[in-house]
Amino acid sequence: MAFEHTTKAFDSDLQELTRLVAEMGGLAERQIVDSVDALTRRDVALGARVVAADSEIDQLQRVIEERAVLTIARRQPMAVDLREIVGALRVATDLERIGDLAKNIGKRVNALDNDFHPLKLIRGLEHMTDLVQSQVKAVLDAYAAHDLPAAMVVWNGDEEVDAICTSLFRELLTYMMEDPRNISFCIHLMFCAKNIERIGDHATNIAETVFYMIEGQQILDKRPKGDMTNFADAAPGNT
Amino acid sequence: MAFEHTTKAFDSDLQELTRLVAEMGGLAERQIVDSVDALTRRDVALGARVVAADSEIDQLQRVIEERAVLTIARRQPMAVDLREIVGALRVATDLERIGDLAKNIGKRVNALDNDFHPLKLIRGLEHMTDLVQSQVKAVLDAYAAHDLPAAMVVWNGDEEVDAICTSLFRELLTYMMEDPRNISFCIHLMFCAKNIERIGDHATNIAETVFYMIEGQQILDKRPKGDMTNFADAAPGNT
Repeated sequence: MAFEHTTKAFDSDLQELTRLVAEMGGLAERQIVDSVDALTRRDVALGARVVAADSEIDQLQRVIEERAVLTIARRQPMAVDLREIVGALRVATDLERIGDLAKNIGKRVNALDNDFHPLKLIRGLEHMTDLVQSQVKAVLDAYAAHDLPAAMVVWNGDEEVDAICTSLFRELLTYMMEDPRNISFCIHLMFCAKNIERIGDHATNIAETVFYMIEGQQILDKRPKGDMTNFADAAPGNT
Repeated sequence: MAFEHTTKAFDSDLQELTRLVAEMGGLAERQIVDSVDALTRRDVALGARVVAADSEIDQLQRVIEERAVLTIARRQPMAVDLREIVGALRVATDLERIGDLAKNIGKRVNALDNDFHPLKLIRGLEHMTDLVQSQVKAVLDAYAAHDLPAAMVVWNGDEEVDAICTSLFRELLTYMMEDPRNISFCIHLMFCAKNIERIGDHATNIAETVFYMIEGQQILDKRPKGDMTNFADAAPGNT
């Protein structure tokens, strides 16, 4: 009877944790969309709202951490149950980082004040954001549903994001070389694109957490990754 | 007697956790120094070693997480003791991120293959790195010694790092505008400088963790911060 009581109490704690992570995930997804929206439409007010809303995500991470730790201390869960709690902690850490990256994009809206905004570049960034946001959504769904195959689809899908990012970087480099007046605008877009790419990396981290929760071990395969730190080698003007 | 036993076991667990965090901190410090060393001397082999060594830091984070969680579950520590464990978890998360940022710098060594390497820019980056590395060292010492005033010195000192980073960005921008052939080199240095700046941010996160461990609450003040996302506004050619 005492055992059953503990189990029920644990289940209720875990449910609450999962709910909090879902709430945090919803906020993070909205921040991604809003930040890039603010950037592409140069909506300074929306950019400022994204910056301000980040503290809500930070606060949720603290709450999740506190609840997770108290649940471990009170219920002393073992094995699979413990992994559920550790999973919530890890996902919350990734969502907090996603929030930071979106906030950084939001901050840059102010800086994009010149008139040079080629539609092609904006579309490239939007396309990348759509892809990353759907990765984040898919992996949060996989986390909530304990759906390992769905998480692995996200894990393998990050390569496409990296490829788009590399191609966007090359285009930005071309614009910068064509006209020095484009440089500072293009640098801001590069940092934004890099942030979006990093958000994609956090989606794959969450996929690895789902693997750990279900399989009880860390994933060992190396993720397919279109490395882009060498983008400049292939860029015009650098040969 | 049983209580004493638990306390001793907890103390021994905590000691081991603290030792692991110190080991991880030592590795992270070395990665910061080595990555920038590899970059400024264009030492491709050292860059590759930095990239390879990151998995050691990642592995330590997993070990710390596992030990921390098991300690909470087994010893059921309360209040101040629980904060010690949560503190170790948080510091390990920041050190893992620092490792990632150093790894990213290591990756870029390969890309810096042209002949344009103004000493002034390299010195600027080295100066920034020295400062950030000493911040990381100081805050890890403060963490180990539970020295809140020392942690607060680090917390307040990040402003200087941000200022150097902003000034370095402006110089890089000037070089890019002067000659398009400098662009890809300068972009790599910008990303490296940004990574160093972010490492500094993680040092202040650790200072906040020391505050939390000692004071039992989150720090509420806003950290003084030389915001640099608007660096381009002040740059030549953008007016």
